[in-house]
Amino acid sequence: MNSSKTINLQITAAEQSQIDNVDFDNLVFGKVHTDHMFECDFVDGQWKNAIIRPYGPLSMDPSSKVFHYGQAVFEGMKAYKDDKGQVFLFRPEENWARINKSSKRLAMPEFPKELFFEALETLLKMDQAWIQAGIGNSLYIRPFVIATEAGVSASPSDRYKFLIILSPAQAYYSGEVRVVIAQQFSRAADGGVGFAKAAGNYAAQFYPTNLAKDKGFQQVIWTDANEHKYLEEAGTMNVFFRVGDTLLTAPNNDRILDGVTRKSVITLANDMGIDLEVRRVTVQEIVNAAKEGELKEIFGAGTAAVISPVSAFSYNEEVFDLPELTDSFSGRFKERLTAIQNNLAPDPHGWRHQVI
Amino acid sequence: MNSSKTINLQITAAEQSQIDNVDFDNLVFGKVHTDHMFECDFVDGQWKNAIIRPYGPLSMDPSSKVFHYGQAVFEGMKAYKDDKGQVFLFRPEENWARINKSSKRLAMPEFPKELFFEALETLLKMDQAWIQAGIGNSLYIRPFVIATEAGVSASPSDRYKFLIILSPAQAYYSGEVRVVIAQQFSRAADGGVGFAKAAGNYAAQFYPTNLAKDKGFQQVIWTDANEHKYLEEAGTMNVFFRVGDTLLTAPNNDRILDGVTRKSVITLANDMGIDLEVRRVTVQEIVNAAKEGELKEIFGAGTAAVISPVSAFSYNEEVFDLPELTDSFSGRFKERLTAIQNNLAPDPHGWRHQVI
Repeated sequence: MNSSKTINLQITAAEQSQIDNVDFDNLVFGKVHTDHMFECDFVDGQWKNAIIRPYGPLSMDPSSKVFHYGQAVFEGMKAYKDDKGQVFLFRPEENWARINKSSKRLAMPEFPKELFFEALETLLKMDQAWIQAGIGNSLYIRPFVIATEAGVSASPSDRYKFLIILSPAQAYYSGEVRVVIAQQFSRAADGGVGFAKAAGNYAAQFYPTNLAKDKGFQQVIWTDANEHKYLEEAGTMNVFFRVGDTLLTAPNNDRILDGVTRKSVITLANDMGIDLEVRRVTVQEIVNAAKEGELKEIFGAGTAAVISPVSAFSYNEEVFDLPELTDSFSGRFKERLTAIQNNLAPDPHGWRHQVI
Repeated sequence: MNSSKTINLQITAAEQSQIDNVDFDNLVFGKVHTDHMFECDFVDGQWKNAIIRPYGPLSMDPSSKVFHYGQAVFEGMKAYKDDKGQVFLFRPEENWARINKSSKRLAMPEFPKELFFEALETLLKMDQAWIQAGIGNSLYIRPFVIATEAGVSASPSDRYKFLIILSPAQAYYSGEVRVVIAQQFSRAADGGVGFAKAAGNYAAQFYPTNLAKDKGFQQVIWTDANEHKYLEEAGTMNVFFRVGDTLLTAPNNDRILDGVTRKSVITLANDMGIDLEVRRVTVQEIVNAAKEGELKEIFGAGTAAVISPVSAFSYNEEVFDLPELTDSFSGRFKERLTAIQNNLAPDPHGWRHQVI
């Protein structure tokens, strides 16, 4: 991996900002992008041509390998602004490390840390006006890497593009989240790429998720592909189960994404004295707990989703409603987490990374 | 699905052919493309803007869903030219049906049959000079569909592009094929997308295949993800095993691509009176057969690969060499298949589809 010190970041600023055309009170997630983007090419075994330029189209050969063989990985991050106009990232080193872990599994080149941060911070400074202060508001950050070599032979690309695009965001799930526990379809195989933020992992979930939506559910909680016996993750978020006063979540493995929000919740649970077990969780124990009135909460944790309480789940065509709690774990985690992210609370673990 | 009858195919011909710049004796698979391509957009729930135009770049928004969520499927087909300049496709309806099957699994729209054939045949007629006659030569055809909606929310795209690009080809594997039997990594999960020609299935194989290449092997034969006990497919080809005089191949399931060459070999085996069993094949029985001298052949079957004999396989770090046979099944299948494809033999099953 080459050092970013040798790479000069070029900047071409937009002639005019598009910010006045944006209705920040009615944002659709991921639809609006800021004035600038970062772009960098991997050619001849090296990252080069690092540039921040006005957001705009890419010119792609139709035989580019990303279109045919799915060599594409991404990250999801957020920037938060406090009342004083200070801007923070949340544990950004985790995202840098993970995009490289994803890239490695897809036979793609890793991206240098210094350039990642230089590009990201420069971009955020240029587009800081797009970051809205206030709990729930953020700037969603999407670093991604795509294979750009032209040619339809099924082998790793020798050219890539690393990009960062930005999109102002409110909370991802504004409504109720009802989930189906998977019994037929699967998200990932043992020995596969489920742990990576690989583009293909997401397309594979859309059809089963559509089937769930047809029945009035928004998400699927995936189970192990072998037996559909163990609860894993929800595709865009990791999941937690509260049985009595104990919180349960699946351990990481090569099928489950190592979520930054997930690991933060685990740390916060410890801080808050909440009993937490990281272990394989069976569908049967959750169904039993629901029947016995011991299942208090299910919630998802992810960068886009933040903390999303689940109001009901379906298994074997049977629907189980979760109780409405006044003092839920999910509410407490969400409050604590967003307070740290938005610089409204102390940061004992050093998770905030100030950019401005 | 809308009818293609309402769609007008527009044509913009290239001003000058690039064919004189091509060295047909030294083709790298998939690197050179013909003068024209087909492109059609799915917008507002309908396929529209069908056009054949000069081969050239696509303008893509950086937030296009194909880059982030891997909604991309493809097909591989070939056109063959005989001595009289007649041009044939091989079982093209299978490819049309399969790309739609792949699309459905990835929550993508199906493409109408009439327009598929009208576009493909018109394109082949325009670029027929690029098809070289002679066994081993062909024009590789790559239909593919990509998600083009701009926006980074993890949900199915509402816009797509269907394209066909063409690339003159010689045989895919010119050298020896040595394979590793997978024991750690997996290609597909039960309930996953392994049966689809989904772009992400290919990227997932590159890293394990690179590990195999580092040890002097070109391909991996994938096994079931649960136990790594059953032999499945090789990622770019289905696989057959000859034990004594019996041919074995795995049945289709939701992890294995329903290969056109595979099913043609099964039919040809029947025609030729070769004993064939379509059943789950264990790694152990193949290893045992190799040790006992009963394993005569392993070969791959696929559109790009045609019939590719395997010269050795590795399992548990042990390497098993396959014997060199003078009258191999793989040689007989390859001869029979290519004779039909190239209009050099009768076509009892109606597999040839004449275009010109």
